[in-house]
Formats: sequence, structure tokens, C-alpha cells
Amino acid sequence: MDQIKSIKISKDMTVTNLVKQMSTAGFGARKIGIANGIANKMFSKEDCNVFLGLAGAMVPAGMKQIIIDLINSKKINVLVTTGANLTHDLIEALGEEHFHCDTWNDEEFNKKGYDRIYNVLMKNKVYEKLENFFEKNWEELKSTNNIKDLIQKIGELLPEDSNSIIKACQKNNIPIYCPALADSGIGLMIWGRLASGKEIKIDAFEDMKEIIDTAWTSKTKGVIYIGGGTPKNFIQQSLQFSSGADYGIQITTDSPAGGGSSGAPLEEGKSWGKLKQDAEFVDVNCDATIALPLIFANTLD
Amino acid sequence: MDQIKSIKISKDMTVTNLVKQMSTAGFGARKIGIANGIANKMFSKEDCNVFLGLAGAMVPAGMKQIIIDLINSKKINVLVTTGANLTHDLIEALGEEHFHCDTWNDEEFNKKGYDRIYNVLMKNKVYEKLENFFEKNWEELKSTNNIKDLIQKIGELLPEDSNSIIKACQKNNIPIYCPALADSGIGLMIWGRLASGKEIKIDAFEDMKEIIDTAWTSKTKGVIYIGGGTPKNFIQQSLQFSSGADYGIQITTDSPAGGGSSGAPLEEGKSWGKLKQDAEFVDVNCDATIALPLIFANTLD
Amino acid sequence: MDQIKSIKISKDMTVTNLVKQMSTAGFGARKIGIANGIANKMFSKEDCNVFLGLAGAMVPAGMKQIIIDLINSKKINVLVTTGANLTHDLIEALGEEHFHCDTWNDEEFNKKGYDRIYNVLMKNKVYEKLENFFEKNWEELKSTNNIKDLIQKIGELLPEDSNSIIKACQKNNIPIYCPALADSGIGLMIWGRLASGKEIKIDAFEDMKEIIDTAWTSKTKGVIYIGGGTPKNFIQQSLQFSSGADYGIQITTDSPAGGGSSGAPLEEGKSWGKLKQDAEFVDVNCDATIALPLIFANTLD
Amino acid sequence: MDQIKSIKISKDMTVTNLVKQMSTAGFGARKIGIANGIANKMFSKEDCNVFLGLAGAMVPAGMKQIIIDLINSKKINVLVTTGANLTHDLIEALGEEHFHCDTWNDEEFNKKGYDRIYNVLMKNKVYEKLENFFEKNWEELKSTNNIKDLIQKIGELLPEDSNSIIKACQKNNIPIYCPALADSGIGLMIWGRLASGKEIKIDAFEDMKEIIDTAWTSKTKGVIYIGGGTPKNFIQQSLQFSSGADYGIQITTDSPAGGGSSGAPLEEGKSWGKLKQDAEFVDVNCDATIALPLIFANTLD
Repeated sequence: MDQIKSIKISKDMTVTNLVKQMSTAGFGARKIGIANGIANKMFSKEDCNVFLGLAGAMVPAGMKQIIIDLINSKKINVLVTTGANLTHDLIEALGEEHFHCDTWNDEEFNKKGYDRIYNVLMKNKVYEKLENFFEKNWEELKSTNNIKDLIQKIGELLPEDSNSIIKACQKNNIPIYCPALADSGIGLMIWGRLASGKEIKIDAFEDMKEIIDTAWTSKTKGVIYIGGGTPKNFIQQSLQFSSGADYGIQITTDSPAGGGSSGAPLEEGKSWGKLKQDAEFVDVNCDATIALPLIFANTLD
Repeated sequence: MDQIKSIKISKDMTVTNLVKQMSTAGFGARKIGIANGIANKMFSKEDCNVFLGLAGAMVPAGMKQIIIDLINSKKINVLVTTGANLTHDLIEALGEEHFHCDTWNDEEFNKKGYDRIYNVLMKNKVYEKLENFFEKNWEELKSTNNIKDLIQKIGELLPEDSNSIIKACQKNNIPIYCPALADSGIGLMIWGRLASGKEIKIDAFEDMKEIIDTAWTSKTKGVIYIGGGTPKNFIQQSLQFSSGADYGIQITTDSPAGGGSSGAPLEEGKSWGKLKQDAEFVDVNCDATIALPLIFANTLD
Repeated sequence: MDQIKSIKISKDMTVTNLVKQMSTAGFGARKIGIANGIANKMFSKEDCNVFLGLAGAMVPAGMKQIIIDLINSKKINVLVTTGANLTHDLIEALGEEHFHCDTWNDEEFNKKGYDRIYNVLMKNKVYEKLENFFEKNWEELKSTNNIKDLIQKIGELLPEDSNSIIKACQKNNIPIYCPALADSGIGLMIWGRLASGKEIKIDAFEDMKEIIDTAWTSKTKGVIYIGGGTPKNFIQQSLQFSSGADYGIQITTDSPAGGGSSGAPLEEGKSWGKLKQDAEFVDVNCDATIALPLIFANTLD
Repeated sequence: MDQIKSIKISKDMTVTNLVKQMSTAGFGARKIGIANGIANKMFSKEDCNVFLGLAGAMVPAGMKQIIIDLINSKKINVLVTTGANLTHDLIEALGEEHFHCDTWNDEEFNKKGYDRIYNVLMKNKVYEKLENFFEKNWEELKSTNNIKDLIQKIGELLPEDSNSIIKACQKNNIPIYCPALADSGIGLMIWGRLASGKEIKIDAFEDMKEIIDTAWTSKTKGVIYIGGGTPKNFIQQSLQFSSGADYGIQITTDSPAGGGSSGAPLEEGKSWGKLKQDAEFVDVNCDATIALPLIFANTLD
């Protein structure tokens, strides 16, 4: 049995050093350290395909750059995310911003035109820029017929130097799957066109073929779930009929007792065959905006 | 200011009496009582359309009958749910069951062919019945072209006496929206057909037109969110560009501090215009399997 | 394996019936049902001593009567609680009240003289009544020399018909232990006397002898933890060197992953010997103000 | 309004740099950044007395050194903690250790003599060393008559070079208050002596005089609550009748909706007068083993 060692902090310590120390402490710190070890393993294994499930609204919370850097460093092979993350990413790519709010009065925000996401604000008028983007590029966008291609097309339409998850995936040829894209600001933009009689035919199920194929043909599989929701579940079910994941990291603030998928520990996936019986995995119970930079700081090249 | 009154329990007390008492107690009990009051208001108001967002895996947890009874009592006008709930509902409609497990060993369950959902088990072989259902009825199913119609068609194909959410909605002509249907066992069935060269064309965005129309034209709107996820968000965004909800009940075990939509208090929706500035609403922080029967017991006719 | 059965609600159903149905549903509902079964077992077993650990501020939240009725029904043999619960119980016994607040502005409350406990308010002036009580009865109070006796003396000083936990315990000769009594309004009253030169000698450790004796000599032991904190831990450590508890119910909103005692599952107690290896026990993850009336409704005679 | 900036990670980044970046991100990261700013403010203000409430079992989780370094750097003026932390600190000072466990079988641990605290183990035989320490030093220990002095005496009895919170406080003349000391392994040691007829007279209330005096006479007051429980509450009530805290940091995994003190936001303290109306404060919702090293890394000299 390994001994617990107390963490020793100092002004100039590196994150890498702190996380190494965390791995010999207890409770949640220990899990950050373990997650970092598993991340480095899955990233360094040649034949390992890494599936990143990114839920929540991580872009407005300032997590965009970490995801972009992981993609540009070729650490991620498949991204499954929410329409929310894609919409906020596109909004920032179009030059809009998100803002801090440490106290809130939602009625006031409504009057002033701000939409609140916990301690983050977005101007309601960002929708105008979105409208313009979709209106201007409709001919190209409507030429796609599944969600993955639609998002990739959006990526192509963004300037080369866009600091964007969508753009980074497009440039690196990383597929983005988003089964519930209708449930987002981007969905609303498409609805807006449909409602005014324009046409687009995006198939709801076609992307399944590709992601399940990838799961099926990957020799080694790593999964990273940031939050739960549709992104986690869509990856999980893709793995269910392959041999299951070899490596797993889950970052969530939900607890198992609620019975929901977002709080379900990775271990549960063993019963379904979504996780290999001898997989290396860890559940990190922490706000992802705190856990992400710690776990991944030393994994970029 | 109203005084807190202690709850007095007794062997033969009714749930209705308990919930009434809860409304004069504090903490979570108070909120159960308030939620019951709001439910009765939104159900009794003639021109109020009620949108129910049902996340999680409520069917395997034994909540199916409550939803069915609400639908048969004409309390619900729109149902948005997860593919998981629809799949488990269909599985039970096809004669399969869910089981208890109060302790677990996921490796054992895997060997024995059981899939675990917290303290509930499902036999892995239920997928065979699903396969048969989709194979046998493919011609009819493939004739639909949006998710709502596909689910309604499934409802039509079930026997008249099926005790099922899907069937109850079909019989009562209540639309079921499920933006992430691909992310579910039903999705896997469709993928199975697609992968073997069969065709079906289900549009990913078409249902948006109808639900936003309903939101737009409803004079009074009530929302009930059981869990968060896609069902909550899909209703929220449908309301965003109408006048917002008049009544709201949210049951969740997530806390606001994580920043996710599932834990976001209803109040936050005021900034976006998803909730009216003078709406009556309550956030109930409780396991839905406990809160649901309490809140709705006395709302059925 | 037992099959999950859906809960069927109706307007006139009893709580007893609902809880029985919960025991055949899943997730948290199942646990409410199991807890009710265990409560009835530990209450009906002749030689079983029941230790109730009552944390939190359950009295202001309207849970006082349930505790009183359990005591008067001779279901509880030992009560360990917080100074907060005792202080609020005494405040109500002295004729003061608690109030609802469903929204809050703490600066306003401060100006108006209200102290907030989540959605419950207390008038700041209740401290005057407390002061009077302690001033008037100081001679009698100072004659005690351990915490248990001090609280019992308070019970004796209350009118016979006081609807109070302290009074009920005193009349039924149930000991109340409160290791952190200094950390409460009652503590402040004693500090006030000490600060003005009055004397009282209450030993910090003496109560341990009695509760550990009780644990040691009880043939069968049941534990009920409502919240965690000092009440849970004080019972747990009393059991550590006896044979451990035979029955256990824990109601908490904390999750295990934080590593704290309040969220630690009962199972963990097996390693310490605080819970018997073959004990019957359940962790209920629910707001106690909701869980308590459900679990105990049918356990009173 | 300030703009959200995405966090940019790199292999060699310092914790100081990361935390600075966190302060311009959203959700929990933002709060870590704000907490760091408040910590630096309260530590650098000449006339500010800092009250640290340390709940949980932070010593077995590897947080001991951070607390020791804060004490040795003269950042903390008053420490209120649990008997658990003091017991584990003493156990380590006596040469015993804590160990990792990433999976658990509590029945096995019981057989092998290990006590589990989430993912940390302690050998059951540490109690022998504790017994020896108390037996050997009883004459000196029994000469004290309040909890603070008893703990300080333990500190005096430890070797000069002990790496211990108790020792560091004793050497730096920082008082340690522990209202529920009876509720801990140290309490059990004292019970053991009392049970065998030895005597010690420790007053349960005497420490209140000193801590309330300190609160009363401090010109500026900072509070840091790590977890809630008795340590938080004991500081809160000491401040209630002074002018309230000027600075506040709370690190907790509990949520407000449960109504418990541990999850109550600092803001609530304004109604009671425990927090100044113009105080600077932040609630950090995070596992303390992760938050502590981040918040305090750059605050040591």
C-alpha cells in the first residue's frame, strides 16, 4: 500500500508538480493525479483513438482554448459535444464575447439584453451575428446532409485564423458529432430558415454509422467525458457493441445516487460492455473548469 | 410573514395531506408543497399549455405510470424526453421488464447479461425484442420523416392496451419530441437498419417548427422539468422567442454552481426571456422518483 | 430478482401505500421504501436500542413534531443532536416562532432583524427570551455538570405541556447528547453568564462514558442519521468498540466523493467496526424534510 | 463588464499563473481566482485577524502541510477544527501514516485492520500509539482545564521537529479551538482514562470567552471555511455579536438547498451580522483537496 503524502505548495511551483503531488494525496486531489496519468497514457499510445464528450457550456466558461490545443496537438480523434458549446464557439469566432457577472439580477439582465449562464453573461444581440452568418452562407450550408458535415462546413466558412473549436476540428479533420444540434442556437438558426420556407435536409441518424464504425475499428479506445448528457451517452452507446473503452476519464459534479447518466460512475459501463473489464479509469468529481487545466496541463507537446 | 408549522405524521395520513403540510414546513418540504400548488394551477387553467421535459431514465425507475396518468388526464400538452425514456418505455411495452439491484458487481452483471442503471437492471437480451419490432415494422416506420412522427408511428404499432407513455401520447394525440433520439437504443435500432443498407429519412430539425409554433401560439404556458438535459433545454429555447413561461416547476439533483443547464435555477431563464418576469415557479432539489408522486398525487382527476 | 413496479398515484392514497409502492420502484424511491422497512424492524425488535443522530437545523424546518412523536412512541433510546436543533427547539418552547421566506435579501433581513436559515427566518429578538430564560433559571442550570444533565435540566424547567424535543426526552427519560453544545445559541447563553463572572462547570467529556456504556451493553443496535456532522460521528465512535450497529438508516444530501463524514456511506462503517458485517442498512440521498415524513409515517403506534 | 478569457495551459506553467487565468474564466474557475485574491488581501492587511475553520478529515487527505505552512507564515490567527483533524495530525506526529485505496471492500479492510475514510486508509492499530501517548503523558495533560490548553499541551509534548498542525500552532502561539473534541479519537483516549477511574476536568464552554473576545477586539476580520460543520459555525457565532467578517472564503461541496450550515452561502451570514454588509467574499464549490493548493499556492512568503 502506498502512503499518503501531504501536498507542499510554493509560489513558483508548476501545475505539473502540483498534479504530481495530488496523485499521492487523498480524496479528489488523488483523482486529479490519476486522471492526469490516464490522460498521458491514452494520448501516448499509438493506436488509441480518443473520444472526447464535451457537455455543458464550456466555451462561455473559458475552456475553449484547452479543447483547441488538445485538438491541434492531435490528442483527440472524435469530438461529441452539445449544440450549446458549438453555438458559443461560433459566436466567439464571429467576434462576439462572453462576460463575467459575480452577482445577478435576472430581470435587470433581461432589460439590458444579457443572457445569463451562471456567472457568465452573453449579449442577446449575438443572435444577429449568427443570423447574418447563416443567411449569408445558406447556400453552402444547405448542401450538407448530416450533422457532422454541417458543422464541418461551418468550420470551412470561418476564417483560417479563427481561434475556434469548430475551426480546429475542421483543419485537423476531426469529426464533431452533435446528436441534439436542433437543441441549440445553431438549431434556432436553421429553424429560422426552415420557417421562412428555405430548405435543408439534415439526417438525424446518419452520423451514427461513422462513429460506431470508428468505435468498432479502433484497436484501443480512450474516453474523456466532461460533464455527462448527450455527449457522454452518444460515445457510450457507440462503444457498447465494440469491445468497450480501455481508458476512461470522467469529470462530473453529479452524484451517482440520482440515477442519471451524467452522474453514473464509469464502472457502471462495465455491465453494459461500454468499458473493458480491465480498463484503467477514474471518476473526477469536480467542476470541469477547475479540473480541466489541472488534468491536461502537461499533456500538450 | 407566514409561520413554519411542524409536520405531524400518522399511519393513515394521505399523501395529499402530507403535501399540504409540507407547504408550511421549511427547506425542501416547503418546495414540494409549492410545486404541488403550481401544478394544480397550471393544470386547471383552461388556456394553459403544459410542456413536460422528462430527462433521465425515469421509466426503469418506475415513474412510467405517473407520466401515463398525467397524459391520460389531459394535463400535458407537449412531451419532450430522452431517447432513453422512450427506449425503456418501448421495451416494457414489448413485454420486457426492469429489476432491482441493491448492491452491484458490474463485471458479474456483464457476464450474466445485465445492464445496470444505478439500482435498476435490464437484461441485455431486450435488444432482441427491439430488433424484432423494428425489423417487422420497418416498412411502416420508414414512411415517417421527422422524429415526432416516427415516435407516433411506434405508438400506432403498439397494441391498444399497451401501458406505455408512447402509446398514451399517440392515443391522446400529444406530440413527443426527442431531439437526441439518435442517442438511444431506438437510435441503435435505426442505425442497425441503415448499416444493413435499408433506408429511412428522418429530418433532424423539422420538429422545431411545430414546438416553436406551439410555444408562440400558447396564451398561457406551464413548464415542468424533471431532470435537465436536452428535454429541458429544448423546451426552454422554444419559449425564448415567445413570451416565456407563466408557470414553472423544476425537479433536479444538480446544483447551480456547476454552471450546467440541468442545475440552472428557473430564475436564470428570466434573463433569456424563457420565464416571464412575473411567473410563478419553484426549483425542487430532490430525486425525481421521490418528488414526482408527492407533487402530482392530488393533481389527477 | 424482483421486478420494478411503476408507482401508481391517486388523490386519496395514503403515505403508507405510497412508501410501500416506492419500495418496488427504483433510484431514491426504492431507498425510501427500504428505509421504512428497516425503521419498522428496528422499532419492533424488543432488545434493540435506537440511536438517533439529528444534525442540521431540523426544528426551524418543521421537523420537530416527527421527532417528538418518535420519542413519545418510545422508538428512540438515545438522541444525539446539534446545539442548533436544541436552541431552536427551546426558542419555540419559549413561545417564539420561525417563518417562511421564499426569496431573500440578506441585507434587508439584517436591517429588519431577521436571521435566515435557507428559506426559513427567525427574529433576532428571540435571543432576548433565551437570555431571560437562562438568567432566571441560572441557579438550577448551574447545578449540573455535564451536557446531558444540563439539557435535561432545561427540559425540567419547561412547562409540562411544552411541545418540545427537549421536554419529550426529559419526560421519557431519553438522554440527549450534544458534544458541541458550546457551538450554539445555548452555548452563547452560557458564555454570556460566564463572561459576566457567573460560574458553571460543565465537563466536556463526561457524557462519553454513558453513551459508550449504552452502546456496549445494547444487545441489538439501530442507528438513524439525519444529516451527518457531530451527531452521526458521536454515535459512530460510540459503536466503534462495541459490536457495531445491526440496523442503519442514513438520510443525507452529501455525496461520498467529498470524503467527509456526512456523506460517507454507512457501508464504510464496516471497516471501522461501526456497522456489523451482516447489518441491514440503507443510505437515503434526499432532503431530510422530504424523506423523514415518508420513512416514519407508518412507524408510530 | 469584464470579458471572459479562455485559459491557456502549458507544460511549465506555474500554479500562480493558472490561478490568475482562472480569475478571468467562468464558473468555478473564476471563484478559485477570486478566492486567491481575497486570501492575499486578508493576509496582507496588517490589522486583520484570520479565523480558519477546518472541517472534514483534511489531514488524512494530505492537506496537513498547507495548513502548517500557513501557520508558520503567520497567516492564520485562530484555528477552529474537528477532533478528527487533530487526531489524525497527532497520529502522524506519533509516526503513523495514512494510505491510498482506490477501490474498497470494507469487510476485507475490517478483517485486515484498516479503517477507511473514502479513498484513504488508516491502520486500526494506530490507536495503540495514541493510548501510549495519553497514558505516558496523563499527568501533564490532566493539568489543563479547557480544550484549547489541552491541545496546546499536546503540542508541547510533541518533539520540536514534529511536522504537525498541533505543534505548529503551539510553537507560533496560535490557539486551536475544537468545541466537539469529545467527538474524536482524542476524545476516546480521554474517555479511556475516565472510564478507568482517572480524572481530568475540561470545561465545555470556557474557550468561548477567548474566541469571542478575539472576534470582538479584532479591527479587521477574515474567515476561511474549509468544509462546514462545527468549525465554521463556531467561528460564525463568535462573529455574530462583533461587527462581522470583512473578508470571507468558503470551500464546500455542499449545496445551499439542503438547508444545512455547511452548504449555506456566506451571503446568508449578512442577515445574522456574521458577515459585514460590504464584505468581500466568495463561495468556492469544490473538493477542498483540489481547491486548497490552488487558492493558497502564492500566498506563502
